[in-house]
Amino acid sequence: MKAKELMDKDFVYLSCEDSVVEVSKVMEEIRRFTCPVVNDNKQLVGWITSFDITRGLREGNEKINEIMSSYEDIITIHEDAPARLAVVLTANNKFVTVPVINDDNQVIGMVRACDIVELLSELYDIKVSKLYKAMQNQLKGVTWEELMDASALVSQKTTGIKISPEDYEANIMNATFGEAIWATGGLEKFFAGLISVGELVIARRVGKARK
Amino acid sequence: MKAKELMDKDFVYLSCEDSVVEVSKVMEEIRRFTCPVVNDNKQLVGWITSFDITRGLREGNEKINEIMSSYEDIITIHEDAPARLAVVLTANNKFVTVPVINDDNQVIGMVRACDIVELLSELYDIKVSKLYKAMQNQLKGVTWEELMDASALVSQKTTGIKISPEDYEANIMNATFGEAIWATGGLEKFFAGLISVGELVIARRVGKARK
Repeated sequence: MKAKELMDKDFVYLSCEDSVVEVSKVMEEIRRFTCPVVNDNKQLVGWITSFDITRGLREGNEKINEIMSSYEDIITIHEDAPARLAVVLTANNKFVTVPVINDDNQVIGMVRACDIVELLSELYDIKVSKLYKAMQNQLKGVTWEELMDASALVSQKTTGIKISPEDYEANIMNATFGEAIWATGGLEKFFAGLISVGELVIARRVGKARK
Repeated sequence: MKAKELMDKDFVYLSCEDSVVEVSKVMEEIRRFTCPVVNDNKQLVGWITSFDITRGLREGNEKINEIMSSYEDIITIHEDAPARLAVVLTANNKFVTVPVINDDNQVIGMVRACDIVELLSELYDIKVSKLYKAMQNQLKGVTWEELMDASALVSQKTTGIKISPEDYEANIMNATFGEAIWATGGLEKFFAGLISVGELVIARRVGKARK
């Protein structure tokens, strides 16, 4: 995934000559704490945050170029850079927005923290039951009941707490992937548990076939 | 995970009687676009964003209570609510911050979008090789070479592209979980692939044992 696939194309850009007062009204209206400042060729030349605006209003500055951060101080991301980089920049610098630029240094979009949250959280929201269904489809011939039976056994072995296949099923039907990795103590452990279930199911199948 | 485990306890709260000008300086200094307004008992009574501040400065308001959002309009999260809810609120409402309150309606922290990004992105950054190591540990007696061999075969079957066990290993050593689920087309597919590898490894082990 590239930065350009994650960016919001719906943004407002400012000019150096824009009035601080007018810009303050626009930013309130569109509810954006940050805006890029561009030249006539839409190339990035500055950056405005609400902090610049409040200072500018207080100190009576008139034009945007009196209060903006200069180009050298702006952290940007190229449209073809991995989206992952935008995530790292946001997390490490506590940004709310990272401007996305093309080869000509034109601003073509903005990656916003709230949009990243939405994207990343989708993974956490996947139902655990979907993973079990994927496992069942993969292990052809294994029934759902056999899977729940093996899962309850593995769970019991791992946690020391007795659980029926029915209760186990009820748990995973409600749980999300995010909750499951949290509950098991991390992705590797969650995953190891599922492999363990798969192993047990296969062993039982082999056992049956031999009889 | 609860909201209180995700919140930032380091925040500034305002009083109704605070001066708009002074607050604007504080918010610039601590670089926060939002601040809660509390009473003497630290209970939430209002909410200030940089948009309220710019409007207030422009219109000559003096005190915070003249420009703040009133309590009824603030979306809060209880400290014991699932952290997941803070994620949903942030994504759906495009928030940068959600205030966390206790039973007494006191503000005890702030959940920030950038912190959520940091937390959620950790999962995506886990190396795929770690999952294979977990699989190897789980499937006792299986060597790393057998695992890579089976993986290359499964990959070849799924994608139709021939790949050597060595190249497969090189790929997963560099890849993160986030990249892998993106490349395979989703968590369920990635996971089904791994189950398939496990199945093949077990089948081969059983085959060997019989010989």
